[in-house]
Amino acid sequence: MREVFQQSLHEVQERLVRIAELVETSIENATSAFGNSDVAVAEQVIDDVAEIESMAAELDQLTIDILARQQPVASDLRLIVGALRMSTSLERMGDLAQHIAQLARYRYPESAIPKGLKKIFVRMGALDVEMASKIVELLRQQDPRLIDEVRDLDDDLDELHAKVFEKVLSDKLASNAAGAVDATLASRYHERFGDHAVSIAKQMQFFLSGSRG
Amino acid sequence: MREVFQQSLHEVQERLVRIAELVETSIENATSAFGNSDVAVAEQVIDDVAEIESMAAELDQLTIDILARQQPVASDLRLIVGALRMSTSLERMGDLAQHIAQLARYRYPESAIPKGLKKIFVRMGALDVEMASKIVELLRQQDPRLIDEVRDLDDDLDELHAKVFEKVLSDKLASNAAGAVDATLASRYHERFGDHAVSIAKQMQFFLSGSRG
Repeated sequence: MREVFQQSLHEVQERLVRIAELVETSIENATSAFGNSDVAVAEQVIDDVAEIESMAAELDQLTIDILARQQPVASDLRLIVGALRMSTSLERMGDLAQHIAQLARYRYPESAIPKGLKKIFVRMGALDVEMASKIVELLRQQDPRLIDEVRDLDDDLDELHAKVFEKVLSDKLASNAAGAVDATLASRYHERFGDHAVSIAKQMQFFLSGSRG
Repeated sequence: MREVFQQSLHEVQERLVRIAELVETSIENATSAFGNSDVAVAEQVIDDVAEIESMAAELDQLTIDILARQQPVASDLRLIVGALRMSTSLERMGDLAQHIAQLARYRYPESAIPKGLKKIFVRMGALDVEMASKIVELLRQQDPRLIDEVRDLDDDLDELHAKVFEKVLSDKLASNAAGAVDATLASRYHERFGDHAVSIAKQMQFFLSGSRG
C-alpha cells in the first residue's frame, strides 16, 4: 500500500511541476505583454491560464481519488492536503498573471506603465518569473535550499512594491491618476504573485520534512 | 460510521459559522474604521483577524483528523475537501478586512477616502457586510436561496468597483495620486472580499447538492 501511495505522490508531484511550468510561462508572457503593450502575447496568457485552471481541476480530482482509494493517514494525509493547497496557489498565480496581461490590453495602444516606473516593473516582473522558476525547480528536485531563495526574492519584491507607491506619490507622477491606478494594481498583482510562491514554498517545507519523518 | 461522520460534519459546520461570524464583525469594523478614520477600531480588526487565523488553523486540523479517523469516501470526502476550501476563503476575507482597516491607519489623521468617493465606499462596505452576513446564514441554515443572493450582491459590488475607477479617472479627482492609490487598493480589497464570498457560496451549492445526493 505504501508503495502504491508513493507512486500516487509521484504522479501528484509531476502534475504540480507541469502546472508550475505553465505558470512560469504565463508570468513571463504577462510581464512582456505589460512592458511592451503586446496584445497578442496578452491573449496567449489568457489561453494559458484557462489551461492552468483545467489542469488544477484535474489534479484536485486526482488527489480526491487518492484520498478515497488509498485512505492515507497521518503525514501522508497532510502531504495530499498540502498538494491541494499548492494547486490552489498555482491557480491564483495564473489568475494574477492574467490580471497583469489584461492591464496591457485595457490601455492598448497606450502603455500601462507610467513613465518613470518602467525600470521598477521590469525588475518586479523578472523577480516574479525567477520565483516561478524556483517553484518549478523546488517541486521537481525537492531541494530545501530553494525555499529560502524564494523567500529572499519575495523580500526584494516587497521592497519594490513599497517603492512603487513612493514613486506614484512623488511630485513627478502625482498628477497622473490613470498611471497611479495602473501602477497600484500592477504592483499589487506582482506582490500577491510572490506571496503565493512563498506559500507554496512553505507547503514544500512541510512536505519535505513530512516525507523525511 | 455514517452517524459519526454526520456528527463530525456538524462540528465542521458549526466552526465554519463561528469563523464567518468573526469575518462579518471584522469587515463591519474595517468599513467603519476606513470610513471614519478610527484607529482604535482598525486595531480591533487586526486582533480579530489573528483570531480568525487561529480558528481556521484549528478547523484545518479537525478536517485532517476526520479524514484520518473516518476515511470518508465519495461525496463525503468532497464535503470535507470543500470545508477546507471554505476555511481558506474565510481566512482570506479576514486578511482583506485587515488590509482595508490598515489603509485607515496609514492615512490617519487624514481620511483614506478621497473626496467624492465617500458614498461609493460606504455602499461597497455595506455590500461586503451584507455578503458576510448571508454567508453566516448560508453556513448555518443551509438555505440554497442564499447562494443566488450572494451572487446578486457580488454583481452590485463589481459595478461599484468599475465606478470607482471611472470616478478616480474623472477630471475632478485626476490630480490626486494619493487618493487614486488608496481608492484603487480599497476598491480592489472590497471586490476580492466579494469574490471569496461567492466562492464559499459555490462550495455550499456543491455541499448542499452532495448532502442531498
